[in-house]
Amino acid sequence: MSNDNKKISLAVVRRLPRYYRYLYDLLQSGVTRISSRELSEKMGVTASQIRQDLNCFGGFGQQGYGYNVQNLFNEISKILGTDHRFNVIIIGLGNMGHALANYENFKKRGFDIIGIFDIKPELIGTTVNNIKVMHMDELDEFVKNNRVDIGILSVPYGQTPAIADRLGRLGVKGLWNFSPMDLKLPYDIEIENVHLSDSLMVLGYKIDSKMKK
Amino acid sequence: MSNDNKKISLAVVRRLPRYYRYLYDLLQSGVTRISSRELSEKMGVTASQIRQDLNCFGGFGQQGYGYNVQNLFNEISKILGTDHRFNVIIIGLGNMGHALANYENFKKRGFDIIGIFDIKPELIGTTVNNIKVMHMDELDEFVKNNRVDIGILSVPYGQTPAIADRLGRLGVKGLWNFSPMDLKLPYDIEIENVHLSDSLMVLGYKIDSKMKK
Repeated sequence: MSNDNKKISLAVVRRLPRYYRYLYDLLQSGVTRISSRELSEKMGVTASQIRQDLNCFGGFGQQGYGYNVQNLFNEISKILGTDHRFNVIIIGLGNMGHALANYENFKKRGFDIIGIFDIKPELIGTTVNNIKVMHMDELDEFVKNNRVDIGILSVPYGQTPAIADRLGRLGVKGLWNFSPMDLKLPYDIEIENVHLSDSLMVLGYKIDSKMKK
Repeated sequence: MSNDNKKISLAVVRRLPRYYRYLYDLLQSGVTRISSRELSEKMGVTASQIRQDLNCFGGFGQQGYGYNVQNLFNEISKILGTDHRFNVIIIGLGNMGHALANYENFKKRGFDIIGIFDIKPELIGTTVNNIKVMHMDELDEFVKNNRVDIGILSVPYGQTPAIADRLGRLGVKGLWNFSPMDLKLPYDIEIENVHLSDSLMVLGYKIDSKMKK
């Protein structure tokens, strides 16, 4: 069933990678079908939430049969775009840039890192995980000569807005920002801000609130 | 106003670190009060969402005055536990472990990394960001002799469940897991799973769905 004409809410989209992971694991274990109740127990979500989410893009379960795991996985993969590849560059080869350059999971999910950029002379010309490290001076030329879908920003806080702006002007389609700020740009560009500390603070809250009980 | 007797929903709690960041920036800029409308424009959230969220923990704005930024910041800090310190250890000093050990933002938010554990002989006894690297064999002793609130898991995928189990048995109160799996443990332990690829997949979706328009 095609989802091309449907608008899926971002709240549902944000839950899709989780379905993707669980369905992938089920396929690996040889499970071919699953009921919303079984999936709900595995994922710790209500069965009605699951039915509601999956109905959004035509993943209808059959009464007494449940969902076909492969079909559902294919459909979610298609929506998430893992049926094609995204070209990604990393800006900033500090510790986080290094970690991201070596993160094998991205390739599995459809993201190919095709270049890394930094300014430190000792890094330029080296490779990390077989990816060439280039100088920031080469960035504009590189983006003009290659299809760059996504720029990963793992640069110091203060430099983030200017580099984000430069990538926006160069026509990169999306930014994945690791600086603890909500980037906004006056370009037609999609942005996901990763706020690691936020997640750690939520963990701190959960620990505290349990101890108060 | 005290929030000790109130139960705040986890959905609201997950939004609090974002308020925390924006209010912190406002304080830095010398802003002393702000209306829900102004805050809503800055944050890209509806004013009614903001009023609803802040009412949850007694952050009542005054008609014609708005919110007192300092009071609101203090109240949110208190709820998030930044008025006291959390002791944190990192398990696994690969690229991600290195990045996290050097991430200065954690200290600012109330999290002190007091030890790092790995198994590679060449790492043991070194320091990263002034934090001592110890062997995994020393873990149990260390946790018994120090208050360890949170364990950060930045170990290979396959080793994650066993090490998580070990920390659970040792009585660590919370886990911050960077392996792409939803950890569940039979202990009284809070877990936050960080799924970096999920956020990248959502970015991929946003880029795709714009191109289909």
